[in-house]
Amino acid sequence: MAAPSKPTRIGLAGLAVMGQNLALNIAEKGFPISVYNRTTSKVDETVERAKKEGDLPLYGFHDPESFVQSIQKPRVILMLVKAGAPVDQTIKTLSAYMEKGDCIIDGGNEWYENTERREKAMAEMGLLYLGMGVSGGEEGARNGPSLMPGGSFEAYKYVEDILLKVAAQVSDSGPCVTYVGKGGSGNFVKMVHNGIEYGDMQLIAEAYDVLKSVGKLSNEELQNVFSEWNKGELLSFLIEITADIFGIKDDKGDGYLVDKVLDKTGMKGTGKWTVQQAAELSVAAPTIASSLDARFLSGLKEERVEAAKVFKAGGFGDVLTDQAVDKQKLIDDVRQALYASKICSYAQGMNLIRAKSTEKGWDLKLGELARIWKGGCIIRAVFLDRIKKAYDRNLDLANLLVDPEFAKEIIERQSAWRRVICLAINSGISTPGMSSSLAYFDTYRRERLPANLVQAQRDYFGAHTYERVDIEGSFHTEWFKIARQLN
Amino acid sequence: MAAPSKPTRIGLAGLAVMGQNLALNIAEKGFPISVYNRTTSKVDETVERAKKEGDLPLYGFHDPESFVQSIQKPRVILMLVKAGAPVDQTIKTLSAYMEKGDCIIDGGNEWYENTERREKAMAEMGLLYLGMGVSGGEEGARNGPSLMPGGSFEAYKYVEDILLKVAAQVSDSGPCVTYVGKGGSGNFVKMVHNGIEYGDMQLIAEAYDVLKSVGKLSNEELQNVFSEWNKGELLSFLIEITADIFGIKDDKGDGYLVDKVLDKTGMKGTGKWTVQQAAELSVAAPTIASSLDARFLSGLKEERVEAAKVFKAGGFGDVLTDQAVDKQKLIDDVRQALYASKICSYAQGMNLIRAKSTEKGWDLKLGELARIWKGGCIIRAVFLDRIKKAYDRNLDLANLLVDPEFAKEIIERQSAWRRVICLAINSGISTPGMSSSLAYFDTYRRERLPANLVQAQRDYFGAHTYERVDIEGSFHTEWFKIARQLN
Repeated sequence: MAAPSKPTRIGLAGLAVMGQNLALNIAEKGFPISVYNRTTSKVDETVERAKKEGDLPLYGFHDPESFVQSIQKPRVILMLVKAGAPVDQTIKTLSAYMEKGDCIIDGGNEWYENTERREKAMAEMGLLYLGMGVSGGEEGARNGPSLMPGGSFEAYKYVEDILLKVAAQVSDSGPCVTYVGKGGSGNFVKMVHNGIEYGDMQLIAEAYDVLKSVGKLSNEELQNVFSEWNKGELLSFLIEITADIFGIKDDKGDGYLVDKVLDKTGMKGTGKWTVQQAAELSVAAPTIASSLDARFLSGLKEERVEAAKVFKAGGFGDVLTDQAVDKQKLIDDVRQALYASKICSYAQGMNLIRAKSTEKGWDLKLGELARIWKGGCIIRAVFLDRIKKAYDRNLDLANLLVDPEFAKEIIERQSAWRRVICLAINSGISTPGMSSSLAYFDTYRRERLPANLVQAQRDYFGAHTYERVDIEGSFHTEWFKIARQLN
Repeated sequence: MAAPSKPTRIGLAGLAVMGQNLALNIAEKGFPISVYNRTTSKVDETVERAKKEGDLPLYGFHDPESFVQSIQKPRVILMLVKAGAPVDQTIKTLSAYMEKGDCIIDGGNEWYENTERREKAMAEMGLLYLGMGVSGGEEGARNGPSLMPGGSFEAYKYVEDILLKVAAQVSDSGPCVTYVGKGGSGNFVKMVHNGIEYGDMQLIAEAYDVLKSVGKLSNEELQNVFSEWNKGELLSFLIEITADIFGIKDDKGDGYLVDKVLDKTGMKGTGKWTVQQAAELSVAAPTIASSLDARFLSGLKEERVEAAKVFKAGGFGDVLTDQAVDKQKLIDDVRQALYASKICSYAQGMNLIRAKSTEKGWDLKLGELARIWKGGCIIRAVFLDRIKKAYDRNLDLANLLVDPEFAKEIIERQSAWRRVICLAINSGISTPGMSSSLAYFDTYRRERLPANLVQAQRDYFGAHTYERVDIEGSFHTEWFKIARQLN
């Protein structure tokens, strides 16, 4: 392989799909890059691609030492390896040849506490560390991802010129990268991004289900509907690819490919972590949680087939009743339900980020995060600009739901939203994402909840005390004794 | 204080509400007991109560050494102190005076892994350890709780005679105690018990909300409804105390006390842990999660008051529309919705326990757990007998929903269930517990979910591959390339 004539600007270790594409992206932006992978065939493959895709300044290395030595000092090495133990292993391998002031960036979906642990350990060796969320999948990595770097600010400043060019560029708001904050904040934000992504995908799946199962739309019609939606308020990467998916025929048989795909959804760890962190931080995130549950239940395919038999015997079809629906009206209602639910889901994700930021003293800028998600990443959407503007209007906005613009949009869509969920319920089609979103909204906007009863119960059996609506203080009542006297 | 003439049978440390009552219960069952508390006034208070409540064989100690020395060997000491650090502290204090073969039982709501850690540490000192869930609140502790001991079987056998007498006695199924299993299984089962308790309380609160806000029932009517319900399929401690609560007048003003209780629900850690463990184990537990979220949102009282103003300006009242309802029909529908939702909630909890049991090799007996919850504990209910029987019929039942009896009950109640949720949705009353239960049911009983679309999306942007309905194997499609060729 050709050796670089002078030290390269940056190194990248880990050449699976994401690493390979990100390396080519960096090289294409004019930054000479060294690449390394433990399985060396991946190195050759990447070098080959760099040649084919325009003789890009990318240099491959088969051993870690010459890889590290090839990079200009202070060295920056971006890792794209599997989260967890492989990251520790890679750090161990590379840091053996690194020097004080050098920097390692983890671009994987890592648990934020691992990044904080490593940042500390690296600092003891005089090395800098960043945990950087990278979103955009294969295509985003190659042509411009959304980047969420967190950790050492010094390290960030040293690679900022690269990140600004490599990130997706959005015409009205710049490159999709910003210094997120200290410690593991970059990973945490990426984790919540993924949780929101789960929510978006679930809501789209529910819209599909209602349109297909109740509205009886064909794949062709579905493709048209999602293409239309992608011209309006729902304009986004996920709506766009959904439209694409409905247009693709099966190359192994008749009909459309989407109908041949098994209804089992896989997952990595980030959705789970988001839900666990929401519980940890006392933040309600039911839309995101429902999308995780939907994936869990999708995995129980054999159980579901058996359960369907049990209830079919009890008169349950796949769709409970064929209700006469006005197709055009249904399409319009579902669009509104999807949009209103989406607002709830993002409200949950943003509040989760804020709660963590407060806990950790990260001082994260929610509007800025919405900005860097506008391009490059899986959840990129015109919608994110509205979120950015909501936080521009009011930095301390308690919840996206009460932003005047979003509140207005919800008020306009609430009838359609309620109609769709009731239609689904009466058809036996579950819409856990949409209905938990609506329940979230109807709970949050309610001045008085039935939580008084729950607290009274807690005081009854556990002497947990309660507050009153009219008098300050903490009270306990001997409910049992009084009730026995009355009976 | 009177000293015991001979060593006592057992010791109890930690004399807050639960500890004090459990100590009196043990003494009343004829087991001489030594008690100790760091704050000594609690010791005197307990001794005083023991005298008043029938000269019970209870002996108080102000210092840990004489407390430990007063107990017959091998010594058994039951701790009822706050979970976490206080438990470690108490163990340290007491174990200093204990000898090989002695045993400590933690009766608090402890995180199961802490128990496993302590069991190991104690074993190194030659001491035995049990983590025992205790449910029943103040009253249960005094007169018969449900006990969930897990850990050292040897230790369990040594105290079994006490536990069998102290536990609640259910006429047709014996004392509410069993050896749960190894390690932290007793704590884990208690944790899920509490998660189920959260779910039950939330479902009852929603029933209350719909009946009160939509049905316009008065507290008197509510008391009658819940009293009636407590004679049928819903017969349970929580329904009983709910009926009691509606009957109690405010002693500080006019009207009923329940209306003066602030709508903010507190919580300890067990509900949160349950939700986090469900995510960890890939078990959908949306009913339990929704009850946790409802508590979180109840806590945001000030935000809710503000949000209510925002949406009131948009035409939202507390109840959206006054729909004409047939009160008796509504009451009957709500009862059925509550019952059907409850089945879903217990199905989730039981499957969570099973998943953990499989992971840890605990070999837990789900039917036996339902049996020991039939009396003493907060979720005690006639319903639990149905669960026990379902597992008696089929030990390997995949989900309570597909047990023939429960399936039949759901089929009979499904119309009412759907009616109540749609009525609530159209009234703007959130029923997150009931609707997530229904969504759980409608997802689980569905042979084909829209998860195929989600998996197609994942393969589109992340090359995550998919399975097919018709051909074995793992597939990847270049969706993007094909779509670009088509367009």
